[in-house]
Amino acid sequence: MNDVASKVLTGDPRSIARLITLVENSSPEAASTMKDIHPHTGNAHVIGITGVMGGGKSTLICEITREYRKQGKTVGIIAIDPTSPFSGGALLGDRVRMVKLAMDEGVFIRSMGTRGMLGGLTSAVYDVVEILDASGKDVVIVETVGVGQAEVDVIKVADTTLVVLVPGLGDSIQTIKAGVMEIADIYIINKADRPGVDQAVAEVESLVDIECSNRDRKIPVLTTSAKNGKGIVALVDEIKKHKEYLKKSKEFDVQRRKRYEGELVEIIRKRLMNFIFDESKFKDKVELLIDQIFKKEMDPYTAADEILGKILK
Amino acid sequence: MNDVASKVLTGDPRSIARLITLVENSSPEAASTMKDIHPHTGNAHVIGITGVMGGGKSTLICEITREYRKQGKTVGIIAIDPTSPFSGGALLGDRVRMVKLAMDEGVFIRSMGTRGMLGGLTSAVYDVVEILDASGKDVVIVETVGVGQAEVDVIKVADTTLVVLVPGLGDSIQTIKAGVMEIADIYIINKADRPGVDQAVAEVESLVDIECSNRDRKIPVLTTSAKNGKGIVALVDEIKKHKEYLKKSKEFDVQRRKRYEGELVEIIRKRLMNFIFDESKFKDKVELLIDQIFKKEMDPYTAADEILGKILK
Repeated sequence: MNDVASKVLTGDPRSIARLITLVENSSPEAASTMKDIHPHTGNAHVIGITGVMGGGKSTLICEITREYRKQGKTVGIIAIDPTSPFSGGALLGDRVRMVKLAMDEGVFIRSMGTRGMLGGLTSAVYDVVEILDASGKDVVIVETVGVGQAEVDVIKVADTTLVVLVPGLGDSIQTIKAGVMEIADIYIINKADRPGVDQAVAEVESLVDIECSNRDRKIPVLTTSAKNGKGIVALVDEIKKHKEYLKKSKEFDVQRRKRYEGELVEIIRKRLMNFIFDESKFKDKVELLIDQIFKKEMDPYTAADEILGKILK
Repeated sequence: MNDVASKVLTGDPRSIARLITLVENSSPEAASTMKDIHPHTGNAHVIGITGVMGGGKSTLICEITREYRKQGKTVGIIAIDPTSPFSGGALLGDRVRMVKLAMDEGVFIRSMGTRGMLGGLTSAVYDVVEILDASGKDVVIVETVGVGQAEVDVIKVADTTLVVLVPGLGDSIQTIKAGVMEIADIYIINKADRPGVDQAVAEVESLVDIECSNRDRKIPVLTTSAKNGKGIVALVDEIKKHKEYLKKSKEFDVQRRKRYEGELVEIIRKRLMNFIFDESKFKDKVELLIDQIFKKEMDPYTAADEILGKILK
């Protein structure tokens, strides 16, 4: 086992940060270090949080984290922010609250930007979850911004997924229709100090009634006011109950298997695409083919045939 | 050239619909038909429209389409809706307006649901753009719902990308920070009949000033009230001006090349992933490896090595 790996397992923050960076940059040492830590994963409760922009997810995460810390648990937080030229990296304005939290040595926070098509966000996220898990964190929270397909895919890395809605925006139903119903384990109506809460709760509960009629667990609908610290204890309790449900119904193992499968898929995808499009041996050939496609001398399907014919057995 | 291909080239709606379905299902005949039509692509002006949910994009698209029809142009519309168990397919409520439009034979509309990780949305979208282009449509409009990474990627298929914002939600800046600034060619503040328009315009224009200070084209910021039919003529005119700018600056060819490159990447990705994870020869091996990963007898990176070793030359 290499040095970085053994330090990560002790929970050393600098080594954790270093390994995450190695993984994000697809460094050669990353793979061997990830191999070393894998046997030490599988203990953390992975919680995914998604929902509309402006739903107060950051504040909610801070409050959930503070509650876990009160209970003596350590927490890792992965905040997935779209990259922007205006924020100078992957920090959005309302993450200022997180800075204070980051000073607690029982909390590790990492912001990750979204990436382009070839690299893919999801590959690195799986790895960072593994790293925080192996480092001994009791809970790993993964937050995504927005509700798009990539966000829905990322959340599959979680054991328990929270979907955060806000009353009065009229988009509770729209958000749920955005494919989110399939992934939600707990619904949260945040900013419950605003008007329209009862209506939002009623809307969501009626959808839940229809969706869960054939299931053995009814998705709970909770209200919180994160900025006022309300509803947090009940929420953390509900999260715990979900883990117990997963363990009892063996769904926990099923979910873990899905997560490892998802990770394997992503590692393969990333390697294959890098192999074809980044390694110089093929890169020139690919450029040539794209030229021919552009001049209509060839079509993309035939070009794909050529490339695959060269690389596959 | 096969029968479906030649009929698609005449603009026959049933053949267009048939080929789209073949492509969505990755049918064997799809690839050869796509090869036949490729030489006939490259003429349509592809317009991407993205922005926050609830921004009135559907209504805007209807109005833009009506204006193009007045100018004697034919239009293809691809509406990418997240799949939902509650809407029975890929239709959202506010698409009712589109039904009337669909009765115009100069307009072809297709809704496409989002797909899971392996299939990938973007592959089929590139193909459908090609199909509508080859069928003779002057304009192809691609609409995505929400602002996530997948949506940002999809929009790369477009020549001209419109980003739609709404005044007063306070999220103009957030949306722009969501990586959207890099893809916008025209900003639209829709629902301009609402309060807060001037402020929204000012916010966006100041961001544009900063971002475009080193560029040779300043991104225009327009206001529209789609439901009242206001600002549409000016918008369509601005879209036309952008195409002229692309052609003059040779950016048009660069953009087309990027589109074909994106299509090639997606076809290869889809084929490789299907090859590994769907074809029965490997599927069993993969299941076995996932079991071993789960039992910690193996890690995902080593498993990836094994699979890639078996399939690559």
